[in-house]
Parts: sequence; structure tokens; C-alpha cells
Amino acid sequence: MKFSPLVDELIQSLRALPGVGPKSAQRMAFQLLERERKVGLKLADSLQKAMSEVGHCQSCRTFTEQDLCPICSSHRRVNSGIICVVETPADVLAIEAGGHFNGRYFVLLGHLSPLDGVGPEELGLALLERHLTSDDVSELILATNPTVEGDATAHFIADMARRHNVVISRIAHGVPVGGELEYVDSTTLALSFNGRIPLL
Amino acid sequence: MKFSPLVDELIQSLRALPGVGPKSAQRMAFQLLERERKVGLKLADSLQKAMSEVGHCQSCRTFTEQDLCPICSSHRRVNSGIICVVETPADVLAIEAGGHFNGRYFVLLGHLSPLDGVGPEELGLALLERHLTSDDVSELILATNPTVEGDATAHFIADMARRHNVVISRIAHGVPVGGELEYVDSTTLALSFNGRIPLL
Repeated sequence: MKFSPLVDELIQSLRALPGVGPKSAQRMAFQLLERERKVGLKLADSLQKAMSEVGHCQSCRTFTEQDLCPICSSHRRVNSGIICVVETPADVLAIEAGGHFNGRYFVLLGHLSPLDGVGPEELGLALLERHLTSDDVSELILATNPTVEGDATAHFIADMARRHNVVISRIAHGVPVGGELEYVDSTTLALSFNGRIPLL
Repeated sequence: MKFSPLVDELIQSLRALPGVGPKSAQRMAFQLLERERKVGLKLADSLQKAMSEVGHCQSCRTFTEQDLCPICSSHRRVNSGIICVVETPADVLAIEAGGHFNGRYFVLLGHLSPLDGVGPEELGLALLERHLTSDDVSELILATNPTVEGDATAHFIADMARRHNVVISRIAHGVPVGGELEYVDSTTLALSFNGRIPLL
């Protein structure tokens, strides 16, 4: 059966969110309509503003509505001379959650994928190279995902960076803390052996 | 770490949706920002319109932006003389999905719950009684949930309806089709024995 047009439209629009199926969309719509109209209006307002105003940081390409994101605006972090290259803004959040990294980021917004038409230009590598040329960068940490595409992207960027006077490193891959050897896949286990660290 | 204010606000607003935790909200926000700005704007627009324009059907109390919902506007369904009482608009959808019921509905928008301040007035029972008095109603089907509150609400409405010349019925409770006796709880099993139907 069809509901009233506006209710139907709301359910359809909510289904477009990732991970939301027909039942969840219906539940969301009804909960908002029954008890939380103000919350719904607030969400509409946040969406409207974010979709139309949020752009990319001119220095690291993460999401921000200003010219520079909070991290690229921090002298302390820019002066550290370390740039960490990640694939997505979510990766920035994940690393920041740890609180152990004090450099700045460069967000590729994807990985090399020639079949999908994603080349060096789409990843903003010219901007990254400008940073390596003009800024005082001592180290470039490649933190792309350990997938075929992520590894290829890391190698491509490493080749580019070798023309500049900068230390290039790749984050370590191995057994995660709290993981059990028995349940770790063989590729990860092989990487953890290759990357073993001598105990002094 | 904090994102830019607008992105943070969007993630917080998305978390208010039922079933959406911090990680899902972040994923939704990033997917919309990265690839689906138009979808996001469309959702903002649907939310805005639905929250401010959708009200309740003046006859059955379900959600609609018109005076009468599509079902209450249908002569065929109103003339059937059967009213099915349900707790929520989602219950209407569930029954309509089957396509076997041709009467109209009355939506309580809750169940009797004196501790939460929900009495006969909040459930619109005066409106239901007006239907029983003035309309040509032959049967009242009570399809509230088989919970303590739902059963109490059904009994309360049955008492009220007995003053009018109308057949009162309650939907059957028992073993669901495709269910296995072994896994059905004992209360449901007891109800299915009490409600057994002679095979002719």
C-alpha cells in the first residue's frame, strides 16, 4: 500500500542512506513523525547546510567549510614536518582517535583505479608534490589501506616523493594487538614475519 | 578530534535516528559528502516538508498531509463497515502488505499506559466512539499487540464498544505459519490450543 505522498517520499529518501533498508527507513520516518519532529527539522537543517557549504581543505583535501581544516591551521602540526597520506577523511578520524600522531595529513579521497578513471590528478598528487617542494617536509608516511589498490597507490606516491629530499615510510602491517595468531590470515602473518623488529 | 563544525553537527544529527550509532553516522555523513550531495539535499528537503506538513487523518489518526488518508477517502473501504483498531501507523502498513483486509483502520498511536499518562483521551477513543455511533459499523476488529498493555487496551475498547450494536473480535494468536512447535514459547502455544478451530 502507499502512504501519503510526503511520508512515502521521506521513507524513500531515508533508504538512500548507507545501511538503511526499507524496514529501518520506515521505522526512522515513523519515530521522527511520532515523537521527534524537532530532531527531524534539525537533521534537515544540518544536512542542508553541510551539503551546500562543506568543501575541501585547500591544504590536505579533507572535509571542511573553511579554507583550511583545524589540523592544517595548527602551526604546531604543520611545523612538525611530517605528512601522513591517507585515503579518506574517515581514516584521519581513526588516526586522530589514537592521539599519537602529531603531524598533518594529506587525504587522497580515493586510491589509484585506472578502470574507474581515478588517476594521479583525481588524487590531488600535484598538490602533494607542491607541499614536498615548497614546505619544510622531513617525512612522508604512507598510510593507505593494505589492499592491492592501496599498495599500488603507496608505491606510486613513493616513486614521486623520491625526487624530493624526504624520508618515505609505510605503516607496519601485522598481527593486530589483542588478535590471536590462530585466527590471523596467512598474508598478514607473512607480513608480520617480514616486518619483524629485533629486540635489543 | 573534532571535525569542522558543520560536519560534526551533521554526524550528531544523524545519530539521533533510531539504530544509528557513532560509526554509522560518520559513514553516512562521509558517503553523502563524498559522492551524494544531491541525495543529501533531497533528504533534507523531504525531512523539512514531512516534519512541518504531515499531520493525522481526521478519521483514523494515521499519518497524512491531507484531511483524510487514502484509505479513509475510499468509499469502498469505508462502506465495508469494518474497523480494525491498531496501535501504530506501521501496523497499518503491515496489514496492508497482506492485501487481505478490505475495511478501514483506527490508529490509537499507542496503548493504555496510565503511568506514562496515556489514557483513553490520548488514544482518541472519543473519536472511535463517534464512528461507532454515527457511521454504519458492523464489526470492530481489535488488532492491538499481544502484550500486557495491548491486551488491556483491547479489553477497554471492547467494553466501550459493547454499548453499541457491533460485533467485536480480536485477531487470533497462535503458532505463526512456517514456525516450528519446538521453538514456540509456551504462552503462544497455550493460546493456540485455547483458540483451536474444529475441522469440519
